[in-house]
Amino acid sequence: MTSAQLFEQILQKKSYLCIGLDTDINKIPKHLLDLEDPVFEFNRQIIEATADLCVAYKPNIAFYEALGPKGWESLEKTVAILPKNCFSIADAKRGDIGNTSELYARAFFDRMQCDSVTVAPYMGEDSVKPFLGHAGKWVILLALTSNMGSRDFQLLNTGDSEMLFETVLKTSSQWGDASQMMYVVGATQTAYINKVREIVPDHFLLVPGVGAQGGSLPEISKAGFNKQCGLLVNSSRQIIYASSGEDFAEKAREAALAVQQEMAQLLDEYLPA
Amino acid sequence: MTSAQLFEQILQKKSYLCIGLDTDINKIPKHLLDLEDPVFEFNRQIIEATADLCVAYKPNIAFYEALGPKGWESLEKTVAILPKNCFSIADAKRGDIGNTSELYARAFFDRMQCDSVTVAPYMGEDSVKPFLGHAGKWVILLALTSNMGSRDFQLLNTGDSEMLFETVLKTSSQWGDASQMMYVVGATQTAYINKVREIVPDHFLLVPGVGAQGGSLPEISKAGFNKQCGLLVNSSRQIIYASSGEDFAEKAREAALAVQQEMAQLLDEYLPA
Repeated sequence: MTSAQLFEQILQKKSYLCIGLDTDINKIPKHLLDLEDPVFEFNRQIIEATADLCVAYKPNIAFYEALGPKGWESLEKTVAILPKNCFSIADAKRGDIGNTSELYARAFFDRMQCDSVTVAPYMGEDSVKPFLGHAGKWVILLALTSNMGSRDFQLLNTGDSEMLFETVLKTSSQWGDASQMMYVVGATQTAYINKVREIVPDHFLLVPGVGAQGGSLPEISKAGFNKQCGLLVNSSRQIIYASSGEDFAEKAREAALAVQQEMAQLLDEYLPA
Repeated sequence: MTSAQLFEQILQKKSYLCIGLDTDINKIPKHLLDLEDPVFEFNRQIIEATADLCVAYKPNIAFYEALGPKGWESLEKTVAILPKNCFSIADAKRGDIGNTSELYARAFFDRMQCDSVTVAPYMGEDSVKPFLGHAGKWVILLALTSNMGSRDFQLLNTGDSEMLFETVLKTSSQWGDASQMMYVVGATQTAYINKVREIVPDHFLLVPGVGAQGGSLPEISKAGFNKQCGLLVNSSRQIIYASSGEDFAEKAREAALAVQQEMAQLLDEYLPA
């Protein structure tokens, strides 16, 4: 999916919502546990109930990996049924020396046909480049994450009034352009969103941290929008675990609808002409 | 496995060799491909042929992940047959917000019973801590990697004559001690090994980059040894792909033996009394 196609979806659906499929076998409704693949069945129903309200889905790979080969099967089946008009994100936070990154890229791009994968920047250019060598696919690089630990290294001064996340943005934006790279910027980081937009005005940002982690959707939207919207705001638990009963999909739809409606207003109000 | 037990193995085997199981279905001998699980069968024979010559095995998770659920099965079967007197390293380079890191920890520590997992530091303390909450298990944190890209961020100045990898070492060594944390330091980074040892004199270092990547075993050993040896030097391709014929296990043993013999000499010569 190109950024133009993604923006088209955003305008059509009046939504820049990404739904995080952090599907935890211990949290899904009990009545699903008798089925052959409860994790997949949960995802299938969530996707069916929300596909017109969001523009992206983001399976968090850890939740599937924790279940071993069976979890990996549930993941592959889930990615295979994601609607073609939704952007798919393998939230894997991978990154290794070149030949190893290439194998991770194959796992998520060739086997699973994900549109994108999240990548950690610490190992530098040759750990990220292999992911950029796959036509039509995207790298979503960690820049400024939503968690407390982001302060440990990402905010270190690496030069004259420049912090590590800024150096990561500046350096990495030379490896690939806004047609193949996005950045993770936490919704809890509103203090720095202007700095981010100074360096990468045209890139899409994947924004976790609204909801359970405390970030504000209006604040991050006002400050983060660009002409193509430029934001994919993720919500996971708040939507997929809106109910633990048999009505989980219906309640997930209600929760997603509430976010989508807020997003429609914010787009109306703040999207640059 | 404790560091004392690991050191005991090092003295017994006169080896600080870690064998990297970067098992690539496209590189293993053709006669294995007719078997039900060629990757596992390759690993099984490599392990049988080398277990008395090395003290650790390090499956590189990307190689298994690239094969999907079947690869994940080969991985779990491989970890299950690793000898108990060998230290096992899931080379996964994971790291995410707390609840997600906890799931990765479960995947590698609870399901697979690996002794350790490699973790990326970019997301800070709360992304690493969940891995440290598993008794008897180890975090091997990326500090100064062996690849060219290590220069992009790891060598940035983050203070008065201090570089990012030094800050990572200083900060993270407060999260856990030398009984539960090791660091990745590339064999290609001999210029910085003294700085590493100033900050973490007692920690074990996992050292990739000897062999295919050009690092020197004598140099890194002389500069990196501590009283418990303190090094696990990895070799992957040079050993496991020593032959592409039916004699692959035998040739892997020969290659491992050559490294072990060099290590025995280096231990004799340079291990501090």
